[in-house]
Amino acid sequence: MKALELHPDRLFPTDENARAVARRLYAQIKDLPIVSPHGHTDPQWFADNDPFANATDLLIKPDHYVFRMLYSQGISMESLGIPAKPGVEVEQDGRKIWHIFANNYNKLFRGTPSRMWLDYVFKEVFGFEKILDASTADFYFDQINEKLQTPEFLPRALFEKYNIEWLATTESPLDDLRHHKKIKESGWQGNVITAYRPDPVVDPEFEGFAENVKTLGEITGEDTTHYAGYLTALKNRREYFISFGATSTDHGHASAVTADLSRSEAEALFAKALAGECSAREAEIFRGQMLTEMAGMSLEDGLTMQIHPGSFRNHNAQVFDRYGRDKGADIPMPTEYVSALKPLLDKYGNEPNLCIILFTLDETVYSRELAPLAGHYPALKLGPSWWFHDSPEGMRRFREQVTETAGFYNTVGFNDDTRAFLSIPARHDVARRMDCNFLARLVTEHRLEEDEAADVAVDLTYNLVKQAYKLGV
Amino acid sequence: MKALELHPDRLFPTDENARAVARRLYAQIKDLPIVSPHGHTDPQWFADNDPFANATDLLIKPDHYVFRMLYSQGISMESLGIPAKPGVEVEQDGRKIWHIFANNYNKLFRGTPSRMWLDYVFKEVFGFEKILDASTADFYFDQINEKLQTPEFLPRALFEKYNIEWLATTESPLDDLRHHKKIKESGWQGNVITAYRPDPVVDPEFEGFAENVKTLGEITGEDTTHYAGYLTALKNRREYFISFGATSTDHGHASAVTADLSRSEAEALFAKALAGECSAREAEIFRGQMLTEMAGMSLEDGLTMQIHPGSFRNHNAQVFDRYGRDKGADIPMPTEYVSALKPLLDKYGNEPNLCIILFTLDETVYSRELAPLAGHYPALKLGPSWWFHDSPEGMRRFREQVTETAGFYNTVGFNDDTRAFLSIPARHDVARRMDCNFLARLVTEHRLEEDEAADVAVDLTYNLVKQAYKLGV
Amino acid sequence: MKALELHPDRLFPTDENARAVARRLYAQIKDLPIVSPHGHTDPQWFADNDPFANATDLLIKPDHYVFRMLYSQGISMESLGIPAKPGVEVEQDGRKIWHIFANNYNKLFRGTPSRMWLDYVFKEVFGFEKILDASTADFYFDQINEKLQTPEFLPRALFEKYNIEWLATTESPLDDLRHHKKIKESGWQGNVITAYRPDPVVDPEFEGFAENVKTLGEITGEDTTHYAGYLTALKNRREYFISFGATSTDHGHASAVTADLSRSEAEALFAKALAGECSAREAEIFRGQMLTEMAGMSLEDGLTMQIHPGSFRNHNAQVFDRYGRDKGADIPMPTEYVSALKPLLDKYGNEPNLCIILFTLDETVYSRELAPLAGHYPALKLGPSWWFHDSPEGMRRFREQVTETAGFYNTVGFNDDTRAFLSIPARHDVARRMDCNFLARLVTEHRLEEDEAADVAVDLTYNLVKQAYKLGV
Repeated sequence: MKALELHPDRLFPTDENARAVARRLYAQIKDLPIVSPHGHTDPQWFADNDPFANATDLLIKPDHYVFRMLYSQGISMESLGIPAKPGVEVEQDGRKIWHIFANNYNKLFRGTPSRMWLDYVFKEVFGFEKILDASTADFYFDQINEKLQTPEFLPRALFEKYNIEWLATTESPLDDLRHHKKIKESGWQGNVITAYRPDPVVDPEFEGFAENVKTLGEITGEDTTHYAGYLTALKNRREYFISFGATSTDHGHASAVTADLSRSEAEALFAKALAGECSAREAEIFRGQMLTEMAGMSLEDGLTMQIHPGSFRNHNAQVFDRYGRDKGADIPMPTEYVSALKPLLDKYGNEPNLCIILFTLDETVYSRELAPLAGHYPALKLGPSWWFHDSPEGMRRFREQVTETAGFYNTVGFNDDTRAFLSIPARHDVARRMDCNFLARLVTEHRLEEDEAADVAVDLTYNLVKQAYKLGV
Repeated sequence: MKALELHPDRLFPTDENARAVARRLYAQIKDLPIVSPHGHTDPQWFADNDPFANATDLLIKPDHYVFRMLYSQGISMESLGIPAKPGVEVEQDGRKIWHIFANNYNKLFRGTPSRMWLDYVFKEVFGFEKILDASTADFYFDQINEKLQTPEFLPRALFEKYNIEWLATTESPLDDLRHHKKIKESGWQGNVITAYRPDPVVDPEFEGFAENVKTLGEITGEDTTHYAGYLTALKNRREYFISFGATSTDHGHASAVTADLSRSEAEALFAKALAGECSAREAEIFRGQMLTEMAGMSLEDGLTMQIHPGSFRNHNAQVFDRYGRDKGADIPMPTEYVSALKPLLDKYGNEPNLCIILFTLDETVYSRELAPLAGHYPALKLGPSWWFHDSPEGMRRFREQVTETAGFYNTVGFNDDTRAFLSIPARHDVARRMDCNFLARLVTEHRLEEDEAADVAVDLTYNLVKQAYKLGV
Repeated sequence: MKALELHPDRLFPTDENARAVARRLYAQIKDLPIVSPHGHTDPQWFADNDPFANATDLLIKPDHYVFRMLYSQGISMESLGIPAKPGVEVEQDGRKIWHIFANNYNKLFRGTPSRMWLDYVFKEVFGFEKILDASTADFYFDQINEKLQTPEFLPRALFEKYNIEWLATTESPLDDLRHHKKIKESGWQGNVITAYRPDPVVDPEFEGFAENVKTLGEITGEDTTHYAGYLTALKNRREYFISFGATSTDHGHASAVTADLSRSEAEALFAKALAGECSAREAEIFRGQMLTEMAGMSLEDGLTMQIHPGSFRNHNAQVFDRYGRDKGADIPMPTEYVSALKPLLDKYGNEPNLCIILFTLDETVYSRELAPLAGHYPALKLGPSWWFHDSPEGMRRFREQVTETAGFYNTVGFNDDTRAFLSIPARHDVARRMDCNFLARLVTEHRLEEDEAADVAVDLTYNLVKQAYKLGV
């Protein structure tokens, strides 16, 4: 049995000069509160504060980073107990699933961020001293399950232990936010807020779009069969979300296309969308029109806008048929921003009070498109490296490729973007270490003074995210 | 005259901490046998075991890396004796050609992999102590020519000296494999096997396609004027190749497009292709259909499938007119995989017993498309950095950009992909050193334990390639 | 007040081994003369040799790198006094503008090349000992203004102090080159030459194209209403530019598209262009035709040809409406070269006496397209990393991604490409340091001998640029 160790210098530069700088910078930020303005944790956890289920349900089944790697190596989703559509039998024995994971964990995840995140959780959260492998699988499984039942491992207790200052979840405008209501009414002081993700009611290709828009009308009492009422309904729900602390919206379209149609064109396209008669191109334009409409609403109500384009969702037809959405089969696509965003930018790009945060899965746009755009337009900021690129090398490339053109102050700190609540400190720790790594190189190459770097490190960790997402400011 | 030296630490990290780790890792893999599952050496060399010709014919004329660089600097192909089409006079004096090369070698190839490969050959294979330049040109030329006539430099002797465990050549289905037959019958124990490259009979735009398909029919006794007989003929030739050790197929299409046509659509398109009536787009779809057909055949007969897309072949019209194919004028193109591969993946992507190895000349797809695809689909693996990217920096980018999403175990070790037989150990040595370089960084950044890194190094060098190509397993 | 320091080791590798090599290499090139073959300084400065205006007019208003960053953070262009179209009121008080800049400089420009360039100017040119911030703003403003009135700060004196051997400006064929004439007639020995930038008369989408072509006819006495006369007029102006030292042309098209139309097609398209009836695609083809025509003229008159494609000019509609061109709102676009350049290369790519230098704003093409093209075609060379990529990280990526395929000797040294005259030595110094950084890594990784690296460093700094631009050779 090998010892499980987290080296205090992990992710710092390899040469001693830069490493020493990184250590000093990190010491100044490692204990700052966690601000998590974008993620996918379940608000019910904090509303009900019930214990988490067992190790398998908590750490394997919901983590698509974990099971996509196992699946890629020929391990079936059935055997991993991944929730499937009716009629598909999957493994129910959590311990059996845990063993499959434990047998493969140490080898398959070498060099991946999942390995860093999970080792952190095992060591720092659960206190394991030996690595997870076949020989320790049962010990891990039993220990985790036991601890999860203790008060220290209840959701609110972990939230406080993790020193989380803000945590945003993400909900559809159709959500009644009952869990957020319960949290608010409970008197608990944890800042768990919502974010407004309108994809189900603004994307004509979303499953059940017309039905969703109808429901939106029912919820708001607006006539969503016409464009004007539809827009008003969307605005109403924004207000409702704001009343539960929302400070941002989030948009996960396939492309970054925006549009600025005339009112009559928009109305006609909306009618087509409701009738299910949009072509693929028309659906894209409608989504693009809604981005521009949302930017206009943000200018009024102050919500920060997040655009997350570029994912080919549910690429694996067989997996989608058996298991449904979000099963690790989303694949990035080439994504263009310069022409795509122009209609929105022509209308709102020069607004200094608007904050639109751009993300990408296509790293080629960092230096070519995103940094030049954010380094010019007052309304634009750059989100951190995202999803597949939320990793040490991904973070390094992000800073190396955007900083020289956009600077540090057109970026907005870190997003963990996760539903894996237990790993949140692990993820923020990786980001903090990699920022120190990058800054330490600048200092050691005499491109930045160390006191400036320390200042930047605090801004990247804490101040910029609060400003960009208007949290407590 | 300057000394020719190969430093024992070459290609290792520059800082002492990481370098020390790299040294230890490399010590554990440097003497492992060479497994070369994909390349373009001539099987006749091993069949006949005749001496190689002179230095010029061996090291300059067939090496497009070498003469493309000389050509780019204004040195004519005529003066380099590059084999030309009838009517084009080229230099015949090998020594004169060698002098041109020697006069330019030291300067023009600085910073290129060719320089590393050739210096290795000069020092390790031929034992030269001084660098190649104008002053040593004749000495080199004479020494090489003399040594090539000795028993130690015969093809089979070098194969054994190089400790090659497996070496695959690449042949067309129309090839009778006479050289492989002769090797087999000779009793020599060297594992020289073939690989099945059907481009001439599956690409409607290949020179002589219809004639090639006709020949395929004659060879196999199948009626290749119809799609069914054509497919059967292709399968028959796969069986024939398998009888000569083939474990893989190879596909060098312009794009990664795949298709899954109905039988009647495929039949109709095949008829058009035979009649020479395909549009460019139809030819692409036909090639894509054949990739899917080949994947189906691989599922049956077990051949590993290699897809090498993205080269604009024979870009230089004047060079093609005078010298023909493969004259260093192939240029990479942007290549898309996510949509292109979907038809094939929808049909066969979830087959854990299928092994499809993807290559690219477009490095932008490493992190955006290939790693996410291979990190999900059981049937997909990633080939090493290829051709222009078979270089220290290319290998570094490959590992940095794919490992975090695809891990190490969805990659397949190194391919030398070369016709330059003498440089095979040099090329594998570069790959081994660069893998150690990358792993040493992970170890020094405390992202991987050193014993794990050693384990990975052996896998990358030896085990993964044998598994992926089913060599001796 | 913090000290302003330029560390002697800035931009060198962080580990001691490589840093020591970089120091030695840099010592051998740091004092070489500056050769600046491509830029946008104003020839009137050297013709009239009048003092530069004040700090604000010299360092802020003309530097789009500076004001785009300020603008991106919500500081209005009005408040920065950026010259606007009639009717737009902008700040006139230079000191007030300087204060805005000073208040933001230290923070917003962290990690950017502007910070390195300006700190160099402040320290090395003006001799400041404290950093620029709010507390030193007035002192800086007054000192700079005072010094600018002294003889040592006159344009010619700075030119000589900077040890500039060649400096090229860029003019339209419609320019009468009066300033160059005045320089020539003045007897001053500074090599200030012009370069031929025909965009206004070869791009049908350039503002006033038809009028410009008419003017071209008037200037040359040729009938530019017909294609033949138009080509002759363009040739005549090339001759005129050559008489003022021009050794190069420059082409800033939106794409790299080239064309090789029949004479009748070209004539018909020219007529359409003059009539203002070209579609966007036809305008692109006409520009492409003109690139091929210009290559043909270069083959005759020897002018080196520079192609600078890929910028979406004036992306910000509101800024363009109020402030006009070149206001930091140009954004790079994805740019394809392999198919785009083929018509030109089919005609002239194999000419060893032609020198076409390719630039890009799309870094993805370095390893995929540009290095393979330049590593094959005798007529092609690669320009240095450009514009947004004229930065330490940009230079590093350039060398890492092109050297292995194109070598060093298909590149052409550094271009400062600037109108910020005072920063020219700062920019060349960054390039020299980053070349030494890259070379030092190669040496420390034992991929290049140190004496070879020193040789390459001199070539990259001095010899290659003079050869490629035929300066004094």
